[in-house]
Amino acid sequence: MLTEIITIGDELLIGQVVDTNSAWMAQQLNSIGLKVHQITSVSDSKEHILKALEEAALRVDVILITGGLGPTKDDITKNTLCTYFNAGLKFDQKSFDIIESIFQSRGRTVTDINRKQAEVPDNCTVIHNYLGTAPGMLFEKNNKIYISMPGVPAEMKGLMGKSVIPFLKDKFKRTPLVHKTVLTQGVGESFLAEKISSWEDNLPSNMKLAYLPAAGMVRLRISALGNDETMLRKEVDVELQKLLQIIPDYVYGFDEEKLEEIVGKLLRLQKKTISTAESCTGGFIAHRITTIPGSSEYYMGSVIAYSNEVKTKQLEVDMAIIENHGAVSEAVVRQMANHALRIFNTDVSIACSGIAGPAGGTPEKPVGTVWIAIATHDQTFTKKLQLGSHRERIILETAQHALNMLRKILLNKNNI
Amino acid sequence: MLTEIITIGDELLIGQVVDTNSAWMAQQLNSIGLKVHQITSVSDSKEHILKALEEAALRVDVILITGGLGPTKDDITKNTLCTYFNAGLKFDQKSFDIIESIFQSRGRTVTDINRKQAEVPDNCTVIHNYLGTAPGMLFEKNNKIYISMPGVPAEMKGLMGKSVIPFLKDKFKRTPLVHKTVLTQGVGESFLAEKISSWEDNLPSNMKLAYLPAAGMVRLRISALGNDETMLRKEVDVELQKLLQIIPDYVYGFDEEKLEEIVGKLLRLQKKTISTAESCTGGFIAHRITTIPGSSEYYMGSVIAYSNEVKTKQLEVDMAIIENHGAVSEAVVRQMANHALRIFNTDVSIACSGIAGPAGGTPEKPVGTVWIAIATHDQTFTKKLQLGSHRERIILETAQHALNMLRKILLNKNNI
Repeated sequence: MLTEIITIGDELLIGQVVDTNSAWMAQQLNSIGLKVHQITSVSDSKEHILKALEEAALRVDVILITGGLGPTKDDITKNTLCTYFNAGLKFDQKSFDIIESIFQSRGRTVTDINRKQAEVPDNCTVIHNYLGTAPGMLFEKNNKIYISMPGVPAEMKGLMGKSVIPFLKDKFKRTPLVHKTVLTQGVGESFLAEKISSWEDNLPSNMKLAYLPAAGMVRLRISALGNDETMLRKEVDVELQKLLQIIPDYVYGFDEEKLEEIVGKLLRLQKKTISTAESCTGGFIAHRITTIPGSSEYYMGSVIAYSNEVKTKQLEVDMAIIENHGAVSEAVVRQMANHALRIFNTDVSIACSGIAGPAGGTPEKPVGTVWIAIATHDQTFTKKLQLGSHRERIILETAQHALNMLRKILLNKNNI
Repeated sequence: MLTEIITIGDELLIGQVVDTNSAWMAQQLNSIGLKVHQITSVSDSKEHILKALEEAALRVDVILITGGLGPTKDDITKNTLCTYFNAGLKFDQKSFDIIESIFQSRGRTVTDINRKQAEVPDNCTVIHNYLGTAPGMLFEKNNKIYISMPGVPAEMKGLMGKSVIPFLKDKFKRTPLVHKTVLTQGVGESFLAEKISSWEDNLPSNMKLAYLPAAGMVRLRISALGNDETMLRKEVDVELQKLLQIIPDYVYGFDEEKLEEIVGKLLRLQKKTISTAESCTGGFIAHRITTIPGSSEYYMGSVIAYSNEVKTKQLEVDMAIIENHGAVSEAVVRQMANHALRIFNTDVSIACSGIAGPAGGTPEKPVGTVWIAIATHDQTFTKKLQLGSHRERIILETAQHALNMLRKILLNKNNI
């Protein structure tokens, strides 16, 4: 069964907003075996929306639509749907009750334009939205299903999770399609491709491999099509095990796992606490660790030592060492990590110092030079990286590298 | 002149990768007066790519394509373009030289699969890519222009900036289209809509307003179409000034400005230094401040005090105050900010403490309760927020709110 996603909004076409909804929706549809054939972003124009709906209906059976349902004048999706489905508007009391209760919980009274949001096309099934003021709407026409949702990500996700996915799952028999993604760090795409080339060539014909490079990682996605899902999962697992034998040192996780999640679980399991001492990453490692719910159980705190004064005062790094070796040096990150361990009284500590640029590079230490140290009670591990000249990328990759180093240390791996 | 963007990759359709390229490209095209009519994401399927190219060519004159040019087996765009443009492959020496120099700078030798990347369709104009191994390609067919670029954002951006945008700018006469975006914080979309309703209704007929809500902000975008760009800018400015009179307290910036950029400029101008003392935001405020190049001039450092022990030890918050008022309280953030000011010897300091959830809420202090304090040498400003129950959103909104508070304080505003 094929689906398409249509996202509506001028903001998408002038590039003011990145369409993150489609990827999330596609994941959800995939998870219940519905394949997304195409994603189309169109403008807030009645003619354009109508055309996109007609074209999609020629290709697929299920069309999910987001955007253009807000209370303001630029939102025209609902009226356009009335035209497409030849409907008038009716007032939906339950939608209005929800709008009213949302406003009450914020101590506000419903405005006229919000009252209008409770009006829906008279031939749709309303999908009630408890997270916002625009209801979702489901239509059936010529055996095709159309579902319109607000573009606000949290509201769309609420409707998808609570209503749309269960409805579609129930409606369609699943066509088994299994994905498995292997997450690697510390190796480039083409080097990886060469390394696993013969494994890739020998994949069964119902499997497909994709390389997905991103900052500080390459994801390898195996996709398999077949008739029986349990069997497919087994087949994929056989290939996966072969792959892991070839590149054991680069793989850090699977599917949607995040390094901060993986190390969080390990720290919790090993009952260890952690602190950070960041210079060039400016708090980004701490931010990643603390996005994980429950991280307060193992994460104690950090000193972000952007200036040398903070390095010496708060982290007690010897000024002489900074003067002799420079702030970006093994000796300095070593002290930063070890002192953070003592100061925060934790079992592990991550430190880094680097030149994120654009200024500050020298011929010996060009922009992109980064030192990482991870200290435990027994040992301090250090590593030097050379990460190009893109400031944001240097910050992202340093964090990625440091978290993977931590993972390997917690697992007592050899190749740190 | 209309354009379309086609992004190619199974990873987009299974939702593993968010298509951030399209928004960036759309911005660039818009900046030279080229309107993006549609954005379409299709799979790594020859048939599907060919169909998308044909359909787009019926609608617009310029088609930008990204993705599917990597060295690996799942990348089929180049061969598909050969079919579409009825071309064979030829070896491009200059592309190969670039590939070789990239590999040399990383101390590696060119592999066979990378050598193949120097092959291009024999009827295209090669757009040399100095940031990666896949060259860009430009085709003309039936008066339509097609430009294919790699999907790696940094490489695509390099090609667009250096070659594609200058080429298109030169090729097409610009059709004046002016956008101005007003950035607001601290007010909801529908409240804002009511407040500016009569201004919006009285906008000239060649202007259009869009509301773009995001975490901790609502952007208002005015778009104007006309014949003369200078005149249009003046007309938009007249409306803008009217709008600023109606909502002076909510506007913090314009267009693509970021709060961390705005406060960075103010700090630099006022020769002030800053430190942070973060609890619930776990380093995210520091991260935002330090993404700005040159931030090391004014940003000194931070203590991230996730645990109470760090709050008392590193930030010298009185344990008695934590016990009496709780870690999430005005008294605690007040001390955090003031002590950070002293400890880091800065002119300003931001502190925050809150319950980011999912655990830790109580009836009196539910998840989403956040206290912010900003200390200067003269005064300490505090504010309590109630930010719902979504962990990531609480972190984002707290940072957004704190940075805007800082902006207002630096500008001596009344309504902090």
